[in-house]
Amino acid sequence: MKNVSIGIDVGGTNTAIGVVDREGKVLVKDSIKTPTHGNIGLFIDEITKSVRELANSVATLNPKIEILGLGIGAPNANYYTGNIEFAPNLSFKGVVPMVQLLEKNFPEMKAIAITNDANAAAIGEMVFGGAQSMKNFVVYTLGTGVGSGIVVNGDIVYGHDGFAGECGHTVLIPDGRHCGCGGTGHLEAYCSASGMKRTAFELLAKYNARNSLLAQASFNEVNSKMIFEAAEKGDKVALEVFELTGKWLGIGLANTVHHLSPEAIFLFGGPTAAGSYLFSPAIESMEHNLLPIFKNRVKVLPSQLKMGDAAIVGASALVYKELDKILA
Amino acid sequence: MKNVSIGIDVGGTNTAIGVVDREGKVLVKDSIKTPTHGNIGLFIDEITKSVRELANSVATLNPKIEILGLGIGAPNANYYTGNIEFAPNLSFKGVVPMVQLLEKNFPEMKAIAITNDANAAAIGEMVFGGAQSMKNFVVYTLGTGVGSGIVVNGDIVYGHDGFAGECGHTVLIPDGRHCGCGGTGHLEAYCSASGMKRTAFELLAKYNARNSLLAQASFNEVNSKMIFEAAEKGDKVALEVFELTGKWLGIGLANTVHHLSPEAIFLFGGPTAAGSYLFSPAIESMEHNLLPIFKNRVKVLPSQLKMGDAAIVGASALVYKELDKILA
Repeated sequence: MKNVSIGIDVGGTNTAIGVVDREGKVLVKDSIKTPTHGNIGLFIDEITKSVRELANSVATLNPKIEILGLGIGAPNANYYTGNIEFAPNLSFKGVVPMVQLLEKNFPEMKAIAITNDANAAAIGEMVFGGAQSMKNFVVYTLGTGVGSGIVVNGDIVYGHDGFAGECGHTVLIPDGRHCGCGGTGHLEAYCSASGMKRTAFELLAKYNARNSLLAQASFNEVNSKMIFEAAEKGDKVALEVFELTGKWLGIGLANTVHHLSPEAIFLFGGPTAAGSYLFSPAIESMEHNLLPIFKNRVKVLPSQLKMGDAAIVGASALVYKELDKILA
Repeated sequence: MKNVSIGIDVGGTNTAIGVVDREGKVLVKDSIKTPTHGNIGLFIDEITKSVRELANSVATLNPKIEILGLGIGAPNANYYTGNIEFAPNLSFKGVVPMVQLLEKNFPEMKAIAITNDANAAAIGEMVFGGAQSMKNFVVYTLGTGVGSGIVVNGDIVYGHDGFAGECGHTVLIPDGRHCGCGGTGHLEAYCSASGMKRTAFELLAKYNARNSLLAQASFNEVNSKMIFEAAEKGDKVALEVFELTGKWLGIGLANTVHHLSPEAIFLFGGPTAAGSYLFSPAIESMEHNLLPIFKNRVKVLPSQLKMGDAAIVGASALVYKELDKILA
């Protein structure tokens, strides 16, 4: 018998579903539109149909495969309640009892659990990735926003009500840039992909940098990949974007270290493709801002989950983590 | 048989030692000078002598008393190793194996453990104070410095190497005030008792406030108690010190909430005697800086450990916590 689990990544636009084996390999996968109609019943039906089809295809590949459970990664997901709660970027209003609804359709599953995207990334890192031997670490997910998943003594920190790990909304610069959440000065407003774009446009304005490679695209066109490509061509504005982003991110990482003293912090997401352009100034700034007892003792590492499938793989890892808890 | 434990609070100047019962009441106590000679052997001898004398006096009070163990709170103490490591304000150099040395002298004790002052305060709050029903909370200790003890799922967070909970050294204002640790812009440089004094002197300078009650004392004379007394008399500079300190502290508390989603944050130490002068602006600022999912859901409370004996009581609580772990 070969055990597998199913990972479901609910995104703002698409929902990716995949069957993942105990080594973190995606055997088969599917993608459906995340609905905009707000009807959760229809969405659960579509997920159920997709899961059943995937189960059939793995059964034809290997009849001895057993599907242990469903792990779901979704914005504003609450592990404790099994709900998605007031997710601003999804069409479902209020509180959506995802786990309860899926349990009705899949009574045969040993574990069905949900958590937010960043916690799923952290569990993926723990079960399949670079944190397999670690008990205390943190994952920062850098993308449109900045999320984080915190692991203490081998368990995700959910906190009192399930919503711990919102390091993207710690204050970096009091009264600074407006954040998408309505706050000001948050790390996310500086270190996310869109934060990098904002930095690029501040620098274009500061230097009146007509010759920058970034001076030819609109605010809505520029993205972190373009900034990386410009940096590789030696564009001064793009290079300074990475210097500043790294400096700011390093302060945030240092603040996290001073809270939690982790063995490592993993960086995950699109902007990390820039490698040392981002990592070098981030590590330098973090070290600069650490107490002596922490200096040179905390690793800052790229996530070891493969970008394309990472969200599915992370969500699927939640099932193994749940079953470990049940067996413990 | 009545079980008690002994709390030892190693401070920069004095070391307080007390016998504490299961209700957190100090039965007898003693104070010895924390040596400046750097000889750890002599210090251990003096602690041993004091503990033996206290044990004798409680035995005469009640022959049925059993002393379960020794709990030690000390700066730069590492719970994992049992050592005090490179404490800048103590005369002992390098790594001092406190637990190991005390175990030699007290083989009859069921538990001997050490942690830093702020973690001891958090354990005290959990065992004897306002956090007895809580599994996720944080204690901020405000004094000469700012420390913190973090509890997740009912356990102190020590992190990878034992030094978690240094929220006082998170960055509040990048490139801001110099901190005693050598860093810049740390919360401790703004929200500690000495941070409040620095704020007072900045405001005296800003307003040229010759009429302020704080204008008559030197930089080395002013302390947080004087600022509180001046605020009670309506002194504008003193009132603004509390407004600013609360605003800054609230940002730090919000950053902690975004990491950990605690049920409550307890404030402990001298400056908290100012009550609503400090708590009101701190809570207002924290709420202002929280994501909507956290707003009005995290309590900010004064510590319920009695100020005078809190350090002894907190250290003694470590013994009960250790024995709970052994029994679990």
